[in-house]
Amino acid sequence: MIKKNQAITIPGFKFSAVSAGIKKTGTKDLALIFSENITTTAGVFTTNKIKAAPVKLDIKRIVSQKGQAIIINSGNANACTGAQGLKDAKEISGITAKELCIIPELVYVSSTGVIGRPLPMQKIKKAIPELVEKLSPYSLTEVSTAIMTTDTFPKMAFKKINIAGKIGAIAGIAKGAGMICPNLATMLSFIVTDIAVEKKALDSALRNAVKNSFNRLIIDNDMSTNDTVLIMANGMLKNKPITKSSSLYPKFKNALTEITYNLAKMIAKDGEGATKLIEIIAKGAKTEGDAEKIAKSIASSMLVKTAIYGNDPNWGRIMAAIGYSGVEINEEKINIYIDKFKLVNKGMGIKKIPNNIFSKKEIVVTVELGLGKKEAKILTCDLTEGYIKINASYMT
Amino acid sequence: MIKKNQAITIPGFKFSAVSAGIKKTGTKDLALIFSENITTTAGVFTTNKIKAAPVKLDIKRIVSQKGQAIIINSGNANACTGAQGLKDAKEISGITAKELCIIPELVYVSSTGVIGRPLPMQKIKKAIPELVEKLSPYSLTEVSTAIMTTDTFPKMAFKKINIAGKIGAIAGIAKGAGMICPNLATMLSFIVTDIAVEKKALDSALRNAVKNSFNRLIIDNDMSTNDTVLIMANGMLKNKPITKSSSLYPKFKNALTEITYNLAKMIAKDGEGATKLIEIIAKGAKTEGDAEKIAKSIASSMLVKTAIYGNDPNWGRIMAAIGYSGVEINEEKINIYIDKFKLVNKGMGIKKIPNNIFSKKEIVVTVELGLGKKEAKILTCDLTEGYIKINASYMT
Repeated sequence: MIKKNQAITIPGFKFSAVSAGIKKTGTKDLALIFSENITTTAGVFTTNKIKAAPVKLDIKRIVSQKGQAIIINSGNANACTGAQGLKDAKEISGITAKELCIIPELVYVSSTGVIGRPLPMQKIKKAIPELVEKLSPYSLTEVSTAIMTTDTFPKMAFKKINIAGKIGAIAGIAKGAGMICPNLATMLSFIVTDIAVEKKALDSALRNAVKNSFNRLIIDNDMSTNDTVLIMANGMLKNKPITKSSSLYPKFKNALTEITYNLAKMIAKDGEGATKLIEIIAKGAKTEGDAEKIAKSIASSMLVKTAIYGNDPNWGRIMAAIGYSGVEINEEKINIYIDKFKLVNKGMGIKKIPNNIFSKKEIVVTVELGLGKKEAKILTCDLTEGYIKINASYMT
Repeated sequence: MIKKNQAITIPGFKFSAVSAGIKKTGTKDLALIFSENITTTAGVFTTNKIKAAPVKLDIKRIVSQKGQAIIINSGNANACTGAQGLKDAKEISGITAKELCIIPELVYVSSTGVIGRPLPMQKIKKAIPELVEKLSPYSLTEVSTAIMTTDTFPKMAFKKINIAGKIGAIAGIAKGAGMICPNLATMLSFIVTDIAVEKKALDSALRNAVKNSFNRLIIDNDMSTNDTVLIMANGMLKNKPITKSSSLYPKFKNALTEITYNLAKMIAKDGEGATKLIEIIAKGAKTEGDAEKIAKSIASSMLVKTAIYGNDPNWGRIMAAIGYSGVEINEEKINIYIDKFKLVNKGMGIKKIPNNIFSKKEIVVTVELGLGKKEAKILTCDLTEGYIKINASYMT
């Protein structure tokens, strides 16, 4: 866990954030992550057929698996902005590269915010020199704040691991809130580490981590045009680079997954208007795919999410969501638990349900299917009037 | 259209509704539809793997395609009620049959309301004799009111058609509100006609009508355990029974679809907490399936639905929903209209959007994909704080 006011540093990385005036509020909206040396880089991007301009640019650049900087703006998604959008993203990377004295191909660009408006390029161009000037090893927290849109708190996770006698570190930040569903959504996450990891191993560890964290996160089933997860490994730890066959690979992979899972949990907790973090566990399925389908079906149910919000033990809605998940089930074998309390036994409700089983801030819904041994876990949050209020007037 | 206070009658059919005390409110909650003679009957039921007891019973009985009565209760879904639930459903049909002096196999049972509670059988049994006694040709409206749960108005549609010189009639009622998604949801609809229709033709006309109406309706993507659409044709018109190859079949099929589409529209309008009826039309797709996927993706987007609620012309959310529908699209060919106003031209937003393009009570969102000639239409409603309020405390 990260203590308050603890400045996280990762050897060789510098961070910076400024207010470029993209957001009307005047808060910081332009951020930079920079590595002193060229890093091994891996990335996972939105599967939405409509991709924002910076995502299109990054997808081309990630092929090299090399990178040295990431520039991120909030307040404008630079999506559905046509040829101009792509030109703008390239120009931002070009100016940033020039200021950093590196080549543009090593600069990744991320944007989040309103779709369909041209970037205020004059403001951004003007702010980049200051952004570079302010780079500091101690400013990761400022970056985590500058990338926020409707997020109510910055999201950061940090872990140290022993790599053959040396202590390496991984730090991750993320932004989320609305429009989150499996396969990412207006979800940005940037991870940096000083551990040396070989290209293929880094890519594979990142894909595994994303699969088990951000892709198991459901807020409102909408998937954005901008989702991006990037990791940069600069090898400053000077360990022997971790390969997929290395004995340290599982350790690194698990540490990375822990980072992304913790970030995903923070995103769920901060779902727009959310008051409760919900973990749905489907157990006893024939396949992991079946378990995932059932957990996702429950986590996507607006009726389940409003019931949990309202402290309403309406387990029938959970049963209905299991029933329409598309998975073959046996109604009479289903048990449902809220935390440790058994709500449904063999497909039927327990008569005396305590009043406040949904009253905690973090709720675990466990479904036992009794058909096999596979399981899956999905993170979500409750659905409240707050979500409606935030989203009914985001643009105007 | 149906005028106020117009009593709809269909020759040979009688209707009745009483308050059995199933609902706490004391409003009518038990209803009966009865035909003087045995009718040709067709039915479509929920595809949820978890089916309510009455649905299980009806699915067995519909095989005969014969029926003479439908008894419906609101306030309790008789779902997830195990062996007792099935026994109760059978007993209700038995008592009703006895009172009506017909065989139980001709009685269909429908329930809607809270899941997982045993039916208050003593109250229901006590009320059935009165229910039968009150049967009248003029009471269809009362039935349409008695089947309501969170509906705010009764839903009824009526149409007369000329069948070889004789004027036949079709009348339909429905209940909907929450938990509506394609493939039905806590959605009940009962249709009666005096037109003689042969078994196969009636079944096929009903399936076509449901496909193009109730299955193209999205409120919250939840699908209930109780959905039922039943049609009874008693042949009182004494026309030559319509077969699938009959020249009158298309006319009957279209009239039936008109009835169910109008009922679906009323259900969308009355979506829980809804303030606006939304029709999503996807045009210019390569296949009807593609068009349907895109229209459903938009209609399911909580972000689109809250934007329309908030009069927020956030077309980026519509673009994003098109992008994650899974259909191959060409961003630069997409046009989007709100009613007649072009909001998006070739994938990019129009600069000056009038303030109140979402302010009407009925909104048509048209998406032109520019890829082919197929289209599909989906009905939905906006998403408001009202939905949350209604569903956060339905059970308690």
